[in-house]
Amino acid sequence: MAAPIEFYLDFSSPYSYLASESIEPLAARYGRSVDYKPMLLGVAFKVSGMRPLPDVPLKGDYSRRDFERSARFASVPFLLPEPFPISTVAPARALLWLSDTDPPRAGSFVHAALRAYFAAGRNISDVAVLADVLRQVGVDPGAALQAIQQTAVKERLREHVDSALARGVFGAPFMFVDGEPFWGHDRLPQIERWLATGPF
Amino acid sequence: MAAPIEFYLDFSSPYSYLASESIEPLAARYGRSVDYKPMLLGVAFKVSGMRPLPDVPLKGDYSRRDFERSARFASVPFLLPEPFPISTVAPARALLWLSDTDPPRAGSFVHAALRAYFAAGRNISDVAVLADVLRQVGVDPGAALQAIQQTAVKERLREHVDSALARGVFGAPFMFVDGEPFWGHDRLPQIERWLATGPF
Repeated sequence: MAAPIEFYLDFSSPYSYLASESIEPLAARYGRSVDYKPMLLGVAFKVSGMRPLPDVPLKGDYSRRDFERSARFASVPFLLPEPFPISTVAPARALLWLSDTDPPRAGSFVHAALRAYFAAGRNISDVAVLADVLRQVGVDPGAALQAIQQTAVKERLREHVDSALARGVFGAPFMFVDGEPFWGHDRLPQIERWLATGPF
Repeated sequence: MAAPIEFYLDFSSPYSYLASESIEPLAARYGRSVDYKPMLLGVAFKVSGMRPLPDVPLKGDYSRRDFERSARFASVPFLLPEPFPISTVAPARALLWLSDTDPPRAGSFVHAALRAYFAAGRNISDVAVLADVLRQVGVDPGAALQAIQQTAVKERLREHVDSALARGVFGAPFMFVDGEPFWGHDRLPQIERWLATGPF
């Protein structure tokens, strides 16, 4: 089987959510699986000098409109949550911990967490909400919440984010297919071409 | 006939070039024409705090790769020119002056100038190159180059760019269809849906 698609996401990124809703069927059509990896846009912004979309004059207003129109275009349920954006350190640590300890549940957790935030408007940076999302996908929330407070798991995320930056991951979603980088949910058509025909 | 598509471009924007190569056939399929309007990204960046893509750490490297891959994806000839980016005040003034005085040639000038820069690597901020591009589309270069030095034309561009900013034009290409804003060549599929079905 060909290499999995590496899919970097930030749990507070609307375009990560939109792409996450179609990347698996797309990958499957070409015999690929998806390997979800957390990214922290806040850390990336410190390196790139970029800012969260809502804070950028003019672009912020456009983006709010574009999130909603792009969701309708993709037929994905979407409501801009409040607060937005949020800190995503806790779900990022949980994803990395699940990827290491219970890989089959990592993907389910990604979908459940992104849908909780972007379709149901639940603040997944809140520990009680995060516990609920973990429970929903069959993970013991007590064990998970304890794990993500451990120094080893915190350190694991720091190293993971540093290595993502070293690979050039400056935004989300950010995908690698056979090592080729693709940024943004609007690159899915190019990813499909790559999967169908190979490098172009 | 339905309202023209308003197409704001910067002559130093690779994605403006890519979109310019397909917007007219797309518009024509739905009985629309295209009204090309110059934008100065340098002025927009002062308002938004954004920076030219090549200057953004990590994103700059990705962008160079993405320009070329996106051009291949769209089957549009492309070579990243040197120098890049360039000042585009002179071609922007020329486009605005042509739109006012000889509208049928405005579109031909847009294509000739963008192709000269992005396919043939000719620096269109150079007066001799700009004269050549004007001549190529049947415009008297002497008259045009004299016109764009006039205070009235300079002032016309300043006012035009200010009014674009007032409409939220922070990047390029930036398109309005029936007043709805679309940013980026990767929004062409959404524009097509809008043209086909109306607001969604």
